[in-house]
Amino acid sequence: MTIKISIDCMGGDHGPSVTIPAAIAFVKDEPDAELILVGLEDALKAELHKHLPSGHPRISIVPATEVIAMDDPVEVALRRKKDSSMRVAISLVKEGKAQACVSAGNTGALMAVSRYVLKTMPGVDRPAICTLIPNQKDCPTYMLDLGANVDCEPHHLHQFALMGSALVSALEGKPKPTVGLLNIGEEDIKGNDVVKQTAVLLRADHAKGVLNFYGNVEGNDIFEGTTDIVVCDGFVGNVVLKASEGLGRFLKNVLKTELKNGPVNLLGAFIAQGAIKAISQRMNPSRYNGASLLGLRGLVFKSHGGEDAYGFGWAIRRAFEAARHDALSQISTAISELMPASDAAAQASAGPGATPGINDINQEKTA
Amino acid sequence: MTIKISIDCMGGDHGPSVTIPAAIAFVKDEPDAELILVGLEDALKAELHKHLPSGHPRISIVPATEVIAMDDPVEVALRRKKDSSMRVAISLVKEGKAQACVSAGNTGALMAVSRYVLKTMPGVDRPAICTLIPNQKDCPTYMLDLGANVDCEPHHLHQFALMGSALVSALEGKPKPTVGLLNIGEEDIKGNDVVKQTAVLLRADHAKGVLNFYGNVEGNDIFEGTTDIVVCDGFVGNVVLKASEGLGRFLKNVLKTELKNGPVNLLGAFIAQGAIKAISQRMNPSRYNGASLLGLRGLVFKSHGGEDAYGFGWAIRRAFEAARHDALSQISTAISELMPASDAAAQASAGPGATPGINDINQEKTA
Repeated sequence: MTIKISIDCMGGDHGPSVTIPAAIAFVKDEPDAELILVGLEDALKAELHKHLPSGHPRISIVPATEVIAMDDPVEVALRRKKDSSMRVAISLVKEGKAQACVSAGNTGALMAVSRYVLKTMPGVDRPAICTLIPNQKDCPTYMLDLGANVDCEPHHLHQFALMGSALVSALEGKPKPTVGLLNIGEEDIKGNDVVKQTAVLLRADHAKGVLNFYGNVEGNDIFEGTTDIVVCDGFVGNVVLKASEGLGRFLKNVLKTELKNGPVNLLGAFIAQGAIKAISQRMNPSRYNGASLLGLRGLVFKSHGGEDAYGFGWAIRRAFEAARHDALSQISTAISELMPASDAAAQASAGPGATPGINDINQEKTA
Repeated sequence: MTIKISIDCMGGDHGPSVTIPAAIAFVKDEPDAELILVGLEDALKAELHKHLPSGHPRISIVPATEVIAMDDPVEVALRRKKDSSMRVAISLVKEGKAQACVSAGNTGALMAVSRYVLKTMPGVDRPAICTLIPNQKDCPTYMLDLGANVDCEPHHLHQFALMGSALVSALEGKPKPTVGLLNIGEEDIKGNDVVKQTAVLLRADHAKGVLNFYGNVEGNDIFEGTTDIVVCDGFVGNVVLKASEGLGRFLKNVLKTELKNGPVNLLGAFIAQGAIKAISQRMNPSRYNGASLLGLRGLVFKSHGGEDAYGFGWAIRRAFEAARHDALSQISTAISELMPASDAAAQASAGPGATPGINDINQEKTA
């Protein structure tokens, strides 16, 4: 079965010079993939021609005349650049011409445009950003939200838990993945009111068999892989993710500096180069690239803006797998089961302006 | 000038077998230190005799008949065990017989008992926990709060900034250390309302020359050493700290596993053992042990419960340096300058029951 993915080729720090080589490598590697490259036509054709002079039967180009810059405010992305590569790529999902979209563009713009074009799923108040984090168990921890929602109510975190659970169930083939609620202690009494009230909702779901709620988890559990999913508000999630990236870079620098300190250490490092390569591979954040924007009526994946073709390829892979495993309908089912029908109808008829949380998204970090 | 430090020798996972060797090593190393060991008399005497059969002129014992267990609820620590080693050690500070106290006991109990015995400083609504975190620049980042306050108002974060600034000024000899406000982006528009309102207060202090406010910082800035101090609420601080500890352990395991993977790597690691020792030393969290409980009318330092004598020695060192540099009066001055005199008087006459935030502390993690 062919899976069609639309790619915003202009996004990210490097644009087509990264996105197109990644797309070519992916399509060669994945016989079921068909990729639609979206962007400034001349730029795409030139880059594609460099690598594949005669083209590829499963790669096509859809032109867009505008590009959303990494520092464009959300308003510009949303109201001024109506023919941006990002918007055209997302619209292909809306029109059913692609099953998922990938972009390395500005996160705030991507969330706002996706929300405007695709709308939120019935029953979802606010979409969330979910990413993978490596852990001791070598099966990733999925964590959400990562910054789309800085102020959350318990029912938002509740929805994040359901969406995350459905995504992991689809992508990892786990029928009942475990969900942990990020807190400052394991005991029920710990945490602020929002977290305590969320735990009540999640425990009720667990009792009904809807969710496999593990209970509270702490910061260290993210990297210990205690649960498949870790749920938190976007402020905490964003700070933890960036702190972890910062610590990772710091430790990598320590490693480099010390192993290059004098000829003896250099010799040792040369002999143990197999181990050092393996360490660097396991510590490579590019393997975990590709965050999903959950809660929309279509699959949208976000690559880190600074990724190279290897990393961008992982984002395409995540979008492809989510589409292949029909993650969207699994999320939709998980969410709709919990909603009275009347709510679902009201939600479905509401326009994008009616959805709360847009302010949060408007201030989302450009990265 | 002699500095007297009281030590709760019964706290932590190991009690006297760790705290007493650490105290002996410290007193031998530091001619200006006088240490008061507090705990069950027989246990202390036996352990001391093992290492120093004839005692030490600058080590004395003050007996206490009770011990606060690591899992004792705050109520038990506060109301039932009135002759606990922790409480007696803190009381020595209150009575002016010691200039600072160190304990590896239960954090929640330590905060509650310290607050009850010493009271909060005039102008401080809620004490906070401040710890050191290693960074790229190899001068530590001081971060607070780490979990004493899960729900903060802007004026709480404001007080944390002032207390942290005064502490770093005293300990690191920096007259105007930089203060960063932890957020999800650098721009003023980013973050939740509490953070935005806090920034307004900190900018006003900066304009008055009271504080060196850098602006918003992000998670990665903690490890990049962008600012001397990072201010956040106790929920975020606790999660970030534990996540960092978890990631550190994870990476250490990866390093170990890969370097022991096969004889060639083992040989390389053996040759580069100097570098590996240096890496392990720089990654060793024990060097950063010793968090301060700020905002009390006395200096109290908390060691991690699981530390060995080397780590516990660092906590004694931090307490000693804070006392030697008179951190207490610097913090008190920084806070009182901002308070109208009437507030100060009201605060000073209020009992411990009147201070808000005790609920937060009551739920503080046992560790």
